[in-house]
Amino acid sequence: MNNALTSLEQQMAGEGLDALLVTDPKHVYYLTGFASDPHERFLGLLLIRGEEPMLILPALDAEAAQAASSVTKIITHSDTDNPYNLLKDCFGSSKLGTLGIEKEHFSVARFEHLTAAVPAERFSDIGPLLRSMRSKKTPDEVKRIKHAAELVEEALRRVLTHVKTGVTENDLVAELEYLMKKVGASGPSFDTMVLSGPKTALPHGVPGNRVIQPGDFLMFDIGVYADGYASDITRTFAIESVDDKLVTIYNTVLAANEAGIAASNPGAPFGSVDKAARDVIEEAGFGEYFLHRVGHGLGMDVHEYPSLHGQNDDIIEIGNVFTVEPGIYVPGLAGVRIEDDLIITAEGAETLTSFPKELTILHL
Amino acid sequence: MNNALTSLEQQMAGEGLDALLVTDPKHVYYLTGFASDPHERFLGLLLIRGEEPMLILPALDAEAAQAASSVTKIITHSDTDNPYNLLKDCFGSSKLGTLGIEKEHFSVARFEHLTAAVPAERFSDIGPLLRSMRSKKTPDEVKRIKHAAELVEEALRRVLTHVKTGVTENDLVAELEYLMKKVGASGPSFDTMVLSGPKTALPHGVPGNRVIQPGDFLMFDIGVYADGYASDITRTFAIESVDDKLVTIYNTVLAANEAGIAASNPGAPFGSVDKAARDVIEEAGFGEYFLHRVGHGLGMDVHEYPSLHGQNDDIIEIGNVFTVEPGIYVPGLAGVRIEDDLIITAEGAETLTSFPKELTILHL
Repeated sequence: MNNALTSLEQQMAGEGLDALLVTDPKHVYYLTGFASDPHERFLGLLLIRGEEPMLILPALDAEAAQAASSVTKIITHSDTDNPYNLLKDCFGSSKLGTLGIEKEHFSVARFEHLTAAVPAERFSDIGPLLRSMRSKKTPDEVKRIKHAAELVEEALRRVLTHVKTGVTENDLVAELEYLMKKVGASGPSFDTMVLSGPKTALPHGVPGNRVIQPGDFLMFDIGVYADGYASDITRTFAIESVDDKLVTIYNTVLAANEAGIAASNPGAPFGSVDKAARDVIEEAGFGEYFLHRVGHGLGMDVHEYPSLHGQNDDIIEIGNVFTVEPGIYVPGLAGVRIEDDLIITAEGAETLTSFPKELTILHL
Repeated sequence: MNNALTSLEQQMAGEGLDALLVTDPKHVYYLTGFASDPHERFLGLLLIRGEEPMLILPALDAEAAQAASSVTKIITHSDTDNPYNLLKDCFGSSKLGTLGIEKEHFSVARFEHLTAAVPAERFSDIGPLLRSMRSKKTPDEVKRIKHAAELVEEALRRVLTHVKTGVTENDLVAELEYLMKKVGASGPSFDTMVLSGPKTALPHGVPGNRVIQPGDFLMFDIGVYADGYASDITRTFAIESVDDKLVTIYNTVLAANEAGIAASNPGAPFGSVDKAARDVIEEAGFGEYFLHRVGHGLGMDVHEYPSLHGQNDDIIEIGNVFTVEPGIYVPGLAGVRIEDDLIITAEGAETLTSFPKELTILHL
């Protein structure tokens, strides 16, 4: 973790930053090793060029921060302090040129407090710098994501033995989240999604008390956190039997998933991955039923840079980790999505997920 | 839910708002009945005075929104559209005076996009208006919070039977989150906290693989979501035996909890609740070990307005729901926190949590 902080400090001059303030708790963790959820309280890592890094945090987190943070200069505030005045004191009386902040994480309300207390000449966005650093994973980060993928696949493997007559989507969600912890994950990396039958046609549907039925598709879109890193996998199964039209849909999505993975090569634009998968679905006549981008970056956040949509001309680099998850959703009928997690190497994409993808019929 | 939308529309003129844009998914749910997690995609409820409300959302959520939302004018965008241009189109060519936004929810980055596309003369913060509406709960909302409290208490009751020789904090977290779903909750309303022994002295500690030991305090700070509303309760138990000093600490926290509840009356300032509880702890000589505010509002968010710190002079009103959760944390030794959820009625506070609070010794 210290390497990232050192690298960020070294890049400040070149980025024209006199100081920067990191406020996303994930980025504070990335740069210091201290993980916390400050809720609405103020948490910030302050780097002033040429000075020792400072961590400003709620007093009640001080002990945990001292134990975990590589930044040892810790400034605490109580619930009655104004943390922006503490910030101002950190800058002293010297004139401040450009202060970098995370504009996607900083709220307009906080920005008004900040600008009232700290009269910097300019506020620039350090989001692109941080997301660029984060998008190139270290071997240690890849190991953690792969471990998170292995854990969620083990939970998926085990939950399939619970797919029995009378079981509901919610039963499977409860069982899965129990299994995630049992196999060693910190917990789900997003709301565990188990959808069945016509509900599989809702890309963001919510699990309910629907009982799994013969003839259904059963879709799991699940992930876990382990050691601060996320996995994200989708698999779709058939229950007891499967209609011919649904077989066609399934195999089209599978071919699109494989085409997307094959297109994931260093040097190609991210948009080409979306295009490769979308072409397969369009050629099969289901283009209107594939409404979302093909994937997203994955790491400390389950959705992070890059966004794999057709217009993204940024270039795939070695060390990028992202999902490839095409889907077809026919309203009122059913939907299929198949999602894998990839790491980009010099040779192309290596999948971090390995759960079988051939159409599998489960028996109740 | 429609009542809240009507009430908001009626208040626009008085608040000097020509239009307002609601972007917090919780508030979109509160005002339309449509719950979603759009991640980084744009979701907004747009009210222009004298026009029909509009819901702008990702295309992949359209079907779910049509099923759930009381606002029927739905405008969708795909991942390649610029949603701020869609917003601009909604305003047409008429000159826009004051546009209300949620400044605590709106990021600086989004605000730069918004101001580039929509040339309003002024942007005012509708956060205080929404939080004031939300802080006075309807009987239906109180019923949901009480139900969420009953569910988490049932999960707590059942998990205590799993406190046995060899069990770890993480084992109890996994069991609790399983039980939460089993008893009918949607899931935890925040990271389930089970801490033992000296770790109970960390107000924001993280559960780990520590085995529960005789002589420990064992602290549960847990809550669930049910029907979109949260509960939040803390109870601290002793394992096998309890040192005299720890008994004193426990009973001091219990007296502080009761003093805080007794001070929770309509017409009094929120700060007086903190003061009532803090006075008990200070008089017992533990003032330096009570580092946080006494409580927080509770509803659709597990932490919402009001913040019950000593300097809050806002006045308690009938319909407010909040927590009272004093604690004493002696580093290296142990900590105790006892937390209840309250609804304010004309007669004073009524507790929505009812789990016994007397010091209880659990046997392994």
